[in-house]
Amino acid sequence: MELWYTEEHTENVRFGIKVKEYLYTKQSDFQRVDIFESYEFGRVLTLDGLMMVNEKDEFIYHDMITHVAMATNPDIKKVLVIGGGDGGTVREISRYLSVEQIDMVEIDELVVKSAIEYLQFTSSKLNDDRVNLYFEDGVKFVEGKEKIYDLIIVDSTDPIGPGEGLFTTEFYQNCYNALTDKGILVNQNESPYYNQNAKELVRANKKIKSIFPISEVYQYHMPTYPSGHWLFGFASKELHPIKDFDAKKWSSLGLKTKYYNTDIHVGAFALPNYVKEMIEND
Amino acid sequence: MELWYTEEHTENVRFGIKVKEYLYTKQSDFQRVDIFESYEFGRVLTLDGLMMVNEKDEFIYHDMITHVAMATNPDIKKVLVIGGGDGGTVREISRYLSVEQIDMVEIDELVVKSAIEYLQFTSSKLNDDRVNLYFEDGVKFVEGKEKIYDLIIVDSTDPIGPGEGLFTTEFYQNCYNALTDKGILVNQNESPYYNQNAKELVRANKKIKSIFPISEVYQYHMPTYPSGHWLFGFASKELHPIKDFDAKKWSSLGLKTKYYNTDIHVGAFALPNYVKEMIEND
Repeated sequence: MELWYTEEHTENVRFGIKVKEYLYTKQSDFQRVDIFESYEFGRVLTLDGLMMVNEKDEFIYHDMITHVAMATNPDIKKVLVIGGGDGGTVREISRYLSVEQIDMVEIDELVVKSAIEYLQFTSSKLNDDRVNLYFEDGVKFVEGKEKIYDLIIVDSTDPIGPGEGLFTTEFYQNCYNALTDKGILVNQNESPYYNQNAKELVRANKKIKSIFPISEVYQYHMPTYPSGHWLFGFASKELHPIKDFDAKKWSSLGLKTKYYNTDIHVGAFALPNYVKEMIEND
Repeated sequence: MELWYTEEHTENVRFGIKVKEYLYTKQSDFQRVDIFESYEFGRVLTLDGLMMVNEKDEFIYHDMITHVAMATNPDIKKVLVIGGGDGGTVREISRYLSVEQIDMVEIDELVVKSAIEYLQFTSSKLNDDRVNLYFEDGVKFVEGKEKIYDLIIVDSTDPIGPGEGLFTTEFYQNCYNALTDKGILVNQNESPYYNQNAKELVRANKKIKSIFPISEVYQYHMPTYPSGHWLFGFASKELHPIKDFDAKKWSSLGLKTKYYNTDIHVGAFALPNYVKEMIEND
């Protein structure tokens, strides 16, 4: 018998992965959580049937969601991660010895529990002394907070289901308020290629731009996400990701990374014309 | 009835596209040629069942295989395209009024014939006065040629089947000889992500490096190719793609492009660490 996991990237495009062993499935109050072992990608976590993280390419996503901001401001001390239940974002942030506090707010405790049991490659640092786990709604968590965090990372699913509130103007405004004067907001910003993702990218970008004086978008190659061409948003009160970036300073930290480097840091902000037009015209 | 085209990106990964109408199939002396109309990607050409070109993302491939070299040396006058039977590479090159001659050598006349009939979006400039079509083996075509072309573009399939000879040291050496002193070789250089593609990337790169004093690799986002993360090789006798690149000069030409721009030109050469290590360690 052959077992295949199939994801619909659009209603007319399918991506399939051969499954070696089906390990775990459970319905939480928020979504269906599945974990399986695959031949090509090792362990895979899906939420509501959509690829979230896998052993083979998670390094790309987690390098790019963390190091661009950390390298722009190596003095970051307090970090808030919203979502990111697999733990990969916390793992990368925890590598910076200068970071004093990492608050992670994940709405779905089941994701964290299953990651601790099945996805050690991402969840290994969730027990770091600096990490505080909150199983709450990230939207509510940031309400009323003022100038607390140097960095907020929105490591969310798509804006359907539990992730929806993390793509609203009100939420972005609350993030702005919760950030210190040199604060940075990084958010999972969808993909420009298929219409359904591009629509969300444009909407989210427009909202963030209306609040933050600096708002840029950078790209990365993510083989198991639809189209492979994905974006993060970089929004900030003061620091510019390229003008204020000191490559030597980051290199002096001596962190080994498999995807990120100081050239990619700059190169990732060079967007194709069709993506620039999409963002600028809106 | 639902009709789906399925490509095996590896033996454990499948990519499927819903077919609106199946238009054409024929076996040539070299390969099987298929053309269909899809919902998501418009017209699609496959060779031996592998995605070659489609209406939706061909602009990415053809922008990146042509404009990086043309912008590095806007004085290019004679161009040789090897492969590229769909015509998209010739279409982009023909936009430069300074180009005087475009020789295209495609081993399989059937690909060109079917592209002229079914793929007007790529084949539209094959009747340009400056274009000479040769239906021959590109490997033999370059043998013995000396200092004729300012640019050779190897727009090939994977190194299996008819494309195999285009990945040999002897062929690269013949290209070197056929190039003028400021000559540039651009070649389809596979993908770093899945082992089977990465192996070919490393092998081709090693060979080219042994012949050309300047040998670099640059990346682009190609949604319908395996993993979406693809590379071109840029090899040259004298000109460096970044140090000798004059962004203002290219911009002054006023060419409209949907993917390429002068920031991408530079950014595309910023490779992830794992790709750099793959190429450098070999």
